Amino acid sequence: MADSRPPLDVLDALITEALAPLAPGRRLWVALSGGLDSSLLLSRVAPAARAQGITLRAVHIDHGLQPAAAAFVDHCRALCVALAVPLSVVPVTVTPTGQGLEAAAREARYAAFAATLATGDMLWLAQHADDQLETFLLAALRGSGVTGLAGMPLRRHWRGLEIIRPWLGVSRSTLRAAAEQCDLAWCEDPTNHALEYDRNFLRHRVAPPLAERWPGAAAAVRRSVAWLAEADELLAELAEGDLALAGDDPGCLPLARLTPLSPARQRLLVRHALARLALPAPPAARLAELRRQWQAGQDRKVRVVWPGAEARVWRGSLYLLPTPAPLDPQWCVSWDGREGLVTPWGTYRYRVIREPDPDDSAAEGSATQKGALEERGSEERVSEEGVHEESVNEALTLRVTLRRGGERLRLAGRGSRDVKRLLQEAGLPPWERERVPLVWHDDTLVAVLGVATAAGWRQMPLPATE
Amino acid sequence: MADSRPPLDVLDALITEALAPLAPGRRLWVALSGGLDSSLLLSRVAPAARAQGITLRAVHIDHGLQPAAAAFVDHCRALCVALAVPLSVVPVTVTPTGQGLEAAAREARYAAFAATLATGDMLWLAQHADDQLETFLLAALRGSGVTGLAGMPLRRHWRGLEIIRPWLGVSRSTLRAAAEQCDLAWCEDPTNHALEYDRNFLRHRVAPPLAERWPGAAAAVRRSVAWLAEADELLAELAEGDLALAGDDPGCLPLARLTPLSPARQRLLVRHALARLALPAPPAARLAELRRQWQAGQDRKVRVVWPGAEARVWRGSLYLLPTPAPLDPQWCVSWDGREGLVTPWGTYRYRVIREPDPDDSAAEGSATQKGALEERGSEERVSEEGVHEESVNEALTLRVTLRRGGERLRLAGRGSRDVKRLLQEAGLPPWERERVPLVWHDDTLVAVLGVATAAGWRQMPLPATE
Repeated sequence: MADSRPPLDVLDALITEALAPLAPGRRLWVALSGGLDSSLLLSRVAPAARAQGITLRAVHIDHGLQPAAAAFVDHCRALCVALAVPLSVVPVTVTPTGQGLEAAAREARYAAFAATLATGDMLWLAQHADDQLETFLLAALRGSGVTGLAGMPLRRHWRGLEIIRPWLGVSRSTLRAAAEQCDLAWCEDPTNHALEYDRNFLRHRVAPPLAERWPGAAAAVRRSVAWLAEADELLAELAEGDLALAGDDPGCLPLARLTPLSPARQRLLVRHALARLALPAPPAARLAELRRQWQAGQDRKVRVVWPGAEARVWRGSLYLLPTPAPLDPQWCVSWDGREGLVTPWGTYRYRVIREPDPDDSAAEGSATQKGALEERGSEERVSEEGVHEESVNEALTLRVTLRRGGERLRLAGRGSRDVKRLLQEAGLPPWERERVPLVWHDDTLVAVLGVATAAGWRQMPLPATE
Repeated sequence: MADSRPPLDVLDALITEALAPLAPGRRLWVALSGGLDSSLLLSRVAPAARAQGITLRAVHIDHGLQPAAAAFVDHCRALCVALAVPLSVVPVTVTPTGQGLEAAAREARYAAFAATLATGDMLWLAQHADDQLETFLLAALRGSGVTGLAGMPLRRHWRGLEIIRPWLGVSRSTLRAAAEQCDLAWCEDPTNHALEYDRNFLRHRVAPPLAERWPGAAAAVRRSVAWLAEADELLAELAEGDLALAGDDPGCLPLARLTPLSPARQRLLVRHALARLALPAPPAARLAELRRQWQAGQDRKVRVVWPGAEARVWRGSLYLLPTPAPLDPQWCVSWDGREGLVTPWGTYRYRVIREPDPDDSAAEGSATQKGALEERGSEERVSEEGVHEESVNEALTLRVTLRRGGERLRLAGRGSRDVKRLLQEAGLPPWERERVPLVWHDDTLVAVLGVATAAGWRQMPLPATE
């Protein structure tokens, strides 16, 4: 269905519609590459947003990938000055991964959006119907599932941002016609015709015969993508319900809850739990192998790995874990016991201190005493429970190692105990036991981090920073 | 990943794998068009099936669409004689609909499969990876949802048949190489190069540039389709669960169960219920309109129609109905009261008889009496509850009409009652009230079908035939 209105009217109407529900003061960013689409979007949004009292900003991600990058930045600055819109230019470094340069650039771009915008901000992207058709085809050519195929929706919530593509239903040719109609200036990307980029190849070699035969191709694919986005939402809802029934810990799924589900639903729940943990999903064949292994019932033998993550079974539960960093048995660092302990395989949020002298703690609350404590390095902290804790913390020098065998810990009132037994008793999964940090003072083991503490010492969890 | 084995070995291995789980005596059909793919499939399956004791048959659907059709039939016959495989040739008439000739031919073909094969039979199709890529693209170019995009799965249960495509992972070029390797004879479809067919256009104009850049395109799309098939299964499972909670009647969904669901889940449940009723789903905009109407809370005003079906709300429930046939208020047929009453808007499975004479029923069980009754046209029947009923059924001539206004029915012990009131009291939705058949004997109203019966008469439901 051809729209008989002038192209600019079509585009302006979509902007009005997308702005309508926004309250004055709401902060809206336009992602500005400097090309035709985003230059046009910013120049049309600016007056409309101003009239509505919306706080408008532009963000330009400088990938630094091509010689023309500086010219793009200059154009963006000039356009924003002319429109009186504040511009943030964010330089990023693109490191090509196995997925190729385009995917790496996209990832860097989104990370920069997340770092630049604040929670609750809106981000508008100038992508249009032809972009969406290309994105859909690229996803299918990678063998993507529902989430990937629905990759460019009209509206999406992502890391606290609301991402909107107000012109997603409009064709590239409408945007070009509108740009000519309003005498817009923009930068032409010199790589737009480079066929070594997958997207350009689709645009120049595959899309034209499609459009020749199916003028409504982009609109049709848009309907498909809308259905896929809805399916994706429904599958997340289904998985979220199953996860809640399984105890709501995505890192530890009881097999007794998992196995009564249909095989497809088991796979969905595992993939959903991994997404919740921000871990990569396994390829279909790895997931099939994982199901085969946990069905075999020999918990201790289950271990399936894939790039970035792995799965294990212990005591009837499926554990989903990031790929563990390799352990150096000779690993040894010094630590002051105050802040969380940073290791190559993660941060342990604990403090280790000497047990306060009973005479000191009896004087607690005395300002004079407190001043004296501060000089000795004490701090006042609010613990996770909100209780004020006051602790003596001399400038300790602790040493942290891994288990090497035979270590023993002297527990208050329980004598000296074998660390290996302590770890078993603590109910730690085997793969965690081997990486629990042991904390030493001089040559005395004073803490098994998160598990047990020696007599005369104390350890306490620190609140999470996020 | 190129397979280094000779093409025929690749294909034979897939056949062996697909046959492996089948018990001897299982009936397996190969859909034989006479082209390369299906001729090759039948000729490779025949010896393997024989060795395993599988009952093999071939079915050729003769669409009669092109002059070459007879040559195809001849080739199929010759091939089946040579392989000693029984062949069923099923002629079909293809009536092009709004969906186009190819869709109509496909529909006719599947109807013929369903009519020719028996429940529990397997149907093997020779479709390959390139066919699947084309099917996926065609579905996207129609704006299909998950079900449509997953349209050509490896394995599918359909109307009691198990449909399998053992070569779905194999490329067209592998099949061609194998056919040359084994000196196969086949019919080349003269329309294969006719670009007026959508599929051929894709094959000759779109697939080549895709394959040039992405040699793994078909394999990738196959992975996407597998994910989509799984998503489709999961969505059906989700909807089936919601339907069960809503009372398990797809034709009548209580709004109190529907509205607490998320909007996406409401849409899913409505589409699923329609699929269960074998009714077409509404376009997205109609479904949105339906939700808007039922949320407005004015039940009596809700009515949303789309081709083939409509939705209404009555007494707090959403009714999903086939498009009602237009009513002729002067409609009048004669009926013997014995078998179900066939009307243009459906069949009413009731019998209407005169109340048996008390003297006759007292003699029940006497063989002589029974013989006499039979001469008078009685029948012995087993009612739905399995009780033997014996009924006097003179060769009645009844007349059936619709309500025209003012009709009254004389009820046993309750006097003469207004039919309009009777229908309201019976709790019939308004749109059903106007199409309830009234049964007359001479000029006396003797039954309001399914609702009430006059004194001296009796009506009883007949068991469903399926």
